[in-house]
Amino acid sequence: MTVEAGCILANIQAAADEVDALFPLSLASEGSCQIGGNLSTNAGGTAVLRYGNTRDLVLGIEAVLPDGRVLNDLGGLRKNNTGFDLKHLFIGAEGTLGIITAAVIKLFPKPTARATALVACTGPDPALALYARMRGQTADTLSTFEYIDRLGLQMVIDHAPGCSDPMAETHPAYCLIELTGNGAQADLDARLEAALEAAYEAEEIIDAVIGASEAQKDALWALRENLSEAQKPEGASIKHDVSVPVSRVADFIREATQACMEHMPGLRPCPFGHFGDGNLHFNLSRPVDMADADFLAEYSTFNRIVHDIVHQMGGSFSAEHGIGTFKRAELRRYKDPVALELMEQIKAVLDPGQLMNPGKVL
Amino acid sequence: MTVEAGCILANIQAAADEVDALFPLSLASEGSCQIGGNLSTNAGGTAVLRYGNTRDLVLGIEAVLPDGRVLNDLGGLRKNNTGFDLKHLFIGAEGTLGIITAAVIKLFPKPTARATALVACTGPDPALALYARMRGQTADTLSTFEYIDRLGLQMVIDHAPGCSDPMAETHPAYCLIELTGNGAQADLDARLEAALEAAYEAEEIIDAVIGASEAQKDALWALRENLSEAQKPEGASIKHDVSVPVSRVADFIREATQACMEHMPGLRPCPFGHFGDGNLHFNLSRPVDMADADFLAEYSTFNRIVHDIVHQMGGSFSAEHGIGTFKRAELRRYKDPVALELMEQIKAVLDPGQLMNPGKVL
Repeated sequence: MTVEAGCILANIQAAADEVDALFPLSLASEGSCQIGGNLSTNAGGTAVLRYGNTRDLVLGIEAVLPDGRVLNDLGGLRKNNTGFDLKHLFIGAEGTLGIITAAVIKLFPKPTARATALVACTGPDPALALYARMRGQTADTLSTFEYIDRLGLQMVIDHAPGCSDPMAETHPAYCLIELTGNGAQADLDARLEAALEAAYEAEEIIDAVIGASEAQKDALWALRENLSEAQKPEGASIKHDVSVPVSRVADFIREATQACMEHMPGLRPCPFGHFGDGNLHFNLSRPVDMADADFLAEYSTFNRIVHDIVHQMGGSFSAEHGIGTFKRAELRRYKDPVALELMEQIKAVLDPGQLMNPGKVL
Repeated sequence: MTVEAGCILANIQAAADEVDALFPLSLASEGSCQIGGNLSTNAGGTAVLRYGNTRDLVLGIEAVLPDGRVLNDLGGLRKNNTGFDLKHLFIGAEGTLGIITAAVIKLFPKPTARATALVACTGPDPALALYARMRGQTADTLSTFEYIDRLGLQMVIDHAPGCSDPMAETHPAYCLIELTGNGAQADLDARLEAALEAAYEAEEIIDAVIGASEAQKDALWALRENLSEAQKPEGASIKHDVSVPVSRVADFIREATQACMEHMPGLRPCPFGHFGDGNLHFNLSRPVDMADADFLAEYSTFNRIVHDIVHQMGGSFSAEHGIGTFKRAELRRYKDPVALELMEQIKAVLDPGQLMNPGKVL
């Protein structure tokens, strides 16, 4: 499908749906964000595990360069090995090399069935074992594997209208798991149940709720979707959008939680997010009795603690949110110096007048 | 998995298999080609339909730059939005910007079942209708959709040891279709049979042979795998590796065949390949009674006829084989001039001394 940059993401999803297809990019802001922004920031979201980041959903782009030339790559080809792949230079460049004005995006067969579960586990380590099991047993049908700490779930239960704990007892951590497929619903249900039974036997999970209806599945999703918003009534929070190799994601949660708690007893870490992509939103809510301003004064200190741990694990301090103005200093600190030099060389040759989105990224 | 550039592709496939995983890149030359070359040329192959091109199978690379600096992006992250995505600049650049020395590649769950069929149809138009049906009905399990013209199949039957026509009658065209999945074999078989029954009802296909055993499936694959080799005993051929939007692939076969036949009556066009990617190897075997040298004297004339049709359809004159030295003139002729200028600007800034793979691509 060919789209102009100003198309609202939700309208693109709807247009795909009308032809019985799926455009899988899905974000909290999909009702207002535009595809041009999604492309410029290489947006992530909740469907990355199965379908990839925004750059993986694009066949070609049109971009206006700083000197007014127009790069036209809207042929819609799935294979084209004729020189450097320029589209990937503009996607994720946050508008610093030119302005993406249109794109040809990939559509996918629309899944006809989904099987959804919220499972409880004792912490990130069994969650990682569970992820490996699900990836092996449910393979390409595994579309969602999101992590939710108990504290985060509690905030959702306390603050999000209509949300309640689907389990009788409280547990340290949860994973939202969804399989999607084009076969029969019963087959997908059976695969999910078989995998979860095996996980229960292996003591990777201690409880599970499987969505028995579309409404119940939506209710399980609401627990994840309301997480960011539900943190706000609890006072100021210091946010991190980090990634590590998937094999290190449990280590990261454990080590970063411990290091942050040591720095500030009473801190309420609330790690959640795209566990299966190795991407966590490691948000820290202030201690219950601390003033917001006092807590936020520690922003850069916590950034340093968390990002240093990420860096030691070969990870990224900005997994899906990009650099903008806010993380320029972190880019200077953590980015491979050769990569940074290459970025500056490319910026200088494509935009010598520094016209494009000045003050961002570099 | 982290691999050095000199690893043989087949050894990488075997190493993945040992840990019960799949590295899906698969090519005729997999027993001898090295992953560094696969990365530099963004190799395609027979698994692109489901898993993408080589660039889609990579999490990061290490590359040595012309001035000796080393770009290190071997973190193995699935998400990392910290500036320009430099790996995609080196992948597919055919060594003209630097030398890829290592990479972190993606592994996938190993399919546990495959369902394979050779179907016969009256030509490329019903084949395209069939492709749309398979994509809709079998969705993500559709891993292979290769087109074979009757002439090509006949050459395989005539020249490839052990290959025979699996059907009692001859037909104008064939498609090799394979579904792969991680569910039960019986489920996958049932999906393939249901889709083919519907295709037969809709008169998209006129006959079908379904592989009933692994040996039979391999025998169907051999008909496709021996296609290139089987053309050689038939005398000189003029080759094209082109792509068009998938929706135009039947138009392309029809129009290019007609135009080439008009130029040289008696010509034996042998279109085959990755129909589902919009990528065809549009090979022309010489008329039976023409000398090889006389035929090959027409190489550039046929290139012009075929590539002009491709270009009119928004396609590419080099879908998966790249530019090298052989297609540099075609690059100058057909590439979007702005893209070409950008490539030259980037080449000049990264390799001002023109040290890297001189005489290639640009």
